[in-house]
Amino acid sequence: MDRKDNTQSKKTPIEETGKIYLIEKLLNGSSNSLSDTISAEEQDNGHILVSHSLLLEGIDFDLVYTPLKHLGYKAVLSALGPIYAACHTPQTISVKIGLSGRFFTEDVEELWQGISAAIAEHKIETAGLDLLPSLTGLTLSLSSQGKQPKERFVQMPAPASGDLICITGSMGAAYMGLQLLEREKALFNSNPGVQPKLGDYKFILKSYLSPEINTTVPETMMNNNIFPSAGEFITRGLADSVKRVCRRSGLGARIFLDKLPIATQTFAMAEELNMDAITAALNGGDDMHLLYVIPLAKYEEFKKELPALDVIGHLSGAGTGTMLVTPDGSSIELKAQGWGD
Amino acid sequence: MDRKDNTQSKKTPIEETGKIYLIEKLLNGSSNSLSDTISAEEQDNGHILVSHSLLLEGIDFDLVYTPLKHLGYKAVLSALGPIYAACHTPQTISVKIGLSGRFFTEDVEELWQGISAAIAEHKIETAGLDLLPSLTGLTLSLSSQGKQPKERFVQMPAPASGDLICITGSMGAAYMGLQLLEREKALFNSNPGVQPKLGDYKFILKSYLSPEINTTVPETMMNNNIFPSAGEFITRGLADSVKRVCRRSGLGARIFLDKLPIATQTFAMAEELNMDAITAALNGGDDMHLLYVIPLAKYEEFKKELPALDVIGHLSGAGTGTMLVTPDGSSIELKAQGWGD
Repeated sequence: MDRKDNTQSKKTPIEETGKIYLIEKLLNGSSNSLSDTISAEEQDNGHILVSHSLLLEGIDFDLVYTPLKHLGYKAVLSALGPIYAACHTPQTISVKIGLSGRFFTEDVEELWQGISAAIAEHKIETAGLDLLPSLTGLTLSLSSQGKQPKERFVQMPAPASGDLICITGSMGAAYMGLQLLEREKALFNSNPGVQPKLGDYKFILKSYLSPEINTTVPETMMNNNIFPSAGEFITRGLADSVKRVCRRSGLGARIFLDKLPIATQTFAMAEELNMDAITAALNGGDDMHLLYVIPLAKYEEFKKELPALDVIGHLSGAGTGTMLVTPDGSSIELKAQGWGD
Repeated sequence: MDRKDNTQSKKTPIEETGKIYLIEKLLNGSSNSLSDTISAEEQDNGHILVSHSLLLEGIDFDLVYTPLKHLGYKAVLSALGPIYAACHTPQTISVKIGLSGRFFTEDVEELWQGISAAIAEHKIETAGLDLLPSLTGLTLSLSSQGKQPKERFVQMPAPASGDLICITGSMGAAYMGLQLLEREKALFNSNPGVQPKLGDYKFILKSYLSPEINTTVPETMMNNNIFPSAGEFITRGLADSVKRVCRRSGLGARIFLDKLPIATQTFAMAEELNMDAITAALNGGDDMHLLYVIPLAKYEEFKKELPALDVIGHLSGAGTGTMLVTPDGSSIELKAQGWGD
């Protein structure tokens, strides 16, 4: 009767199977298995997709240094990001909050302040909320629906070798902000009298605690009828996003190390903590930037309308792998958590 | 820096505020605050809505007596129920699974067996899956998208006093099945040699462990162009569903105690456990039945096509409350968890 008995037997750890391999196997190779969104049947006058996110306390956030208001704001962005990445406009959001006994009405109100600020800012027409009991802290689940006119959807070109890979901001900053907060938490725990020293690192702290999605980029694309061949919301690190694009398109990619935008504060914090800023940029989470793949022939058009997009590499032929190219010209296979490679 | 410090202060427990009151206050009285679904902007050729559910270990399920396969199947139903209740057809589903270290590849495969069985049975075209790390056991979040032709949507009449309240099955069975499983778990924990005695109670056990949604009812409505004035998926108990209909329509309701369908096994189990079968029927969760409100003038039409629908009461005028009418004619206000009444 007690299933815990057999968890001790010869079962396979998920990291050994590889998360992405397992997901693809279970979904039987369905094409949307590596997408952050689910597409509905195409409508006569538009295309609808649904983005869905789940945030768990202790994994996705730590309330010791994340104010509830900031958490609520970020949680909404985590659901909207994939919709913007797909050049859709968010229309609705449903929020489910699991709350253990240590949360009170005032906490829910503070969390909702952040949620409703993001909802207002992103002009979401319809919002739903449900509160559920939990035994184990705070759980947030969000589901958001976005729309795109049909004209745009059908014109999206297929990704091709040579297409440029671009991103909307510098990488690794949120991850280094998180490391700084973790350090201060550890210091505070060992000596509660110590005040946190956060003053010099506003940019990386803001990247972690109060990120914004650069919605100007997808909006400019929509308004100017220029079409990327792929879009990704980068939340699990750049390497993961690039690998998703490659797996879905069946193509390879080359990312150039010296093209990666990394902020001075990200480098400085990494040095202070004896960490590697490049690893933070490639594999650190929480950055909330958008990645777009742009047809090479359309590059001038994109550049004119969207000068802020950083080109970091390009797609390459099938079977060429997902490679990081260093300044000396050598290539290293990109690694990402969950891929089992 | 540590927010736990101030949770000891004069904060308000959520049950004191009242969950429904708090949700409505935060959503500022928006009309969808008591709906299980979020509607998209109306499309030219149909109406899309999104249902969203969150299931937490220890609250919504206990893996000691719930096989993972059954849990997966039920989790999908929990997302599809609100779509059927609204007379939509489910099209897509996204599943996010939070897994702590005690879950292995084989566990995820077993869970997915149930999920994919339900997906196949309900002919859902597109499915997505993501696996996430968790510190605290198993968490399931599902988001499903359903569609309805526009012709149907616009013909749905507004609920009116006198409309009949109908349900698709007997109430309280799943709750009494759960009580039986809880009793056997307690016996097993105090004496692991004892075999569980479950033989005589197949119906209530199936109601809890392997429920089905009676999709024939919404399908018949869709195929025959007959329109309920409201639909609810009953998962938090009948009283909660009736109160949601009343709150949204601004009307009252009268539910007749002697019309409530309650199975013989539900009564028998309640007696054996010294519990009240009526309370189980009104407030027990997990039943997975549908509630429809049917315009009085259309009753003959509904009855002809849907003889299995049980009429249990009717809507009444604004301000008349949500009442349970006993056989002697007296009325008692219906209570439901979370309503703060």
